[in-house]
Amino acid sequence: MDIAILGGTGDIGRGLALRWARDTTHTIHIGSRKSERAQASATEYRTLLSDRGLSGDISGFDNRGAAERARVVVLGVPPYHVRSVIDAIRDGLSEEDILVTPAVGMNRTDAGLRYDPPPTGSVTQFVRETSPDEIPVVGAFHNLPAHRLAELDDPLGIDTVILGDDDDAKSIVSDLAAEIEGLRPLDGGAISQAPEVEGITPLLVNLATRNDGMEDLGVRFT
Amino acid sequence: MDIAILGGTGDIGRGLALRWARDTTHTIHIGSRKSERAQASATEYRTLLSDRGLSGDISGFDNRGAAERARVVVLGVPPYHVRSVIDAIRDGLSEEDILVTPAVGMNRTDAGLRYDPPPTGSVTQFVRETSPDEIPVVGAFHNLPAHRLAELDDPLGIDTVILGDDDDAKSIVSDLAAEIEGLRPLDGGAISQAPEVEGITPLLVNLATRNDGMEDLGVRFT
Repeated sequence: MDIAILGGTGDIGRGLALRWARDTTHTIHIGSRKSERAQASATEYRTLLSDRGLSGDISGFDNRGAAERARVVVLGVPPYHVRSVIDAIRDGLSEEDILVTPAVGMNRTDAGLRYDPPPTGSVTQFVRETSPDEIPVVGAFHNLPAHRLAELDDPLGIDTVILGDDDDAKSIVSDLAAEIEGLRPLDGGAISQAPEVEGITPLLVNLATRNDGMEDLGVRFT
Repeated sequence: MDIAILGGTGDIGRGLALRWARDTTHTIHIGSRKSERAQASATEYRTLLSDRGLSGDISGFDNRGAAERARVVVLGVPPYHVRSVIDAIRDGLSEEDILVTPAVGMNRTDAGLRYDPPPTGSVTQFVRETSPDEIPVVGAFHNLPAHRLAELDDPLGIDTVILGDDDDAKSIVSDLAAEIEGLRPLDGGAISQAPEVEGITPLLVNLATRNDGMEDLGVRFT
């Protein structure tokens, strides 16, 4: 399958690209606002893989170029860039495409990070309302430890909750998540249920900050 | 230490009482609106323990009677009973006491359970605002699988996030949590950070409903 990772030069994008390239035969299209940056990241990821004797099908494009090549488009950008990225790729999407949003709104307070969703209630819902109606939106990959994701020797052993209103699209994204070794997808229900999932991300950061020996946490439901 | 578990005839109260009785030498005071119910539960818990060759120091009282005998008072009641229970025990609290709140506000929607905090932002904050100012309030035991907690053969292997604005009180509650085998307390910060923790409880119920082979889930940060 062709997967675009927009914001694919960032933390989560880097990890997903490397893991999918290692664990699957999918074609990875890194997207960035500038295609040169995406190409540089794609080259870096291929080098990282080849240093391990692996090859990965990873190329770089601008966001629009990556999106129009892919069936599944991961919006790996901060929430305040979601709208401009969707506007940039809108005309390159076709009805079979799926938009995946891992973004979470957070703000910093004196007490630590807090979940700070947009007025729509969640970033997942914001992506839904900002995207063409005919394109399914799936929330996934919200609570992943970015650095461990990109560190291929880390066994992970964590969960990701899949949210969406289109069961077929959820199933496809869930299968993609399950292909990453050490990552278990769980059905979290509808987009309306995204706030409780997105809210775990600032909690993970706070727990890592406050508890000795913990860093870059994920979550396991057990 | 003397621990009161108000609403100690309910699911979480039952589990905490049995675990503390088995794993520690603390004295457990079960509280209920009617002392007869609390006494019946205390007798049942002692019988369950004695069937395992264990003895537990567990007695039953009305909520006020349990609270005034204890240093740590766990408000194991639904959120809509929190105010009436605090009013009932208010005059029996002393400055050394600590109130512990595990309650979470939830409502049922067509899509599943949703986190439904009171206007104060969280149940933990509501308990803070409803309680005497001089009594520290600690949020803990929010995301525990109630039936597994009461099933003493279950190894748990789960976390509980400790929230509060008084470090000494948090430390005492954290130690009490750590004494339960298989339960790991983690510092979650201030009461202002309770919503993200409380919100995990409806998510756990939804995940158990939607995913085969999962029931009565807890959470592990890893």
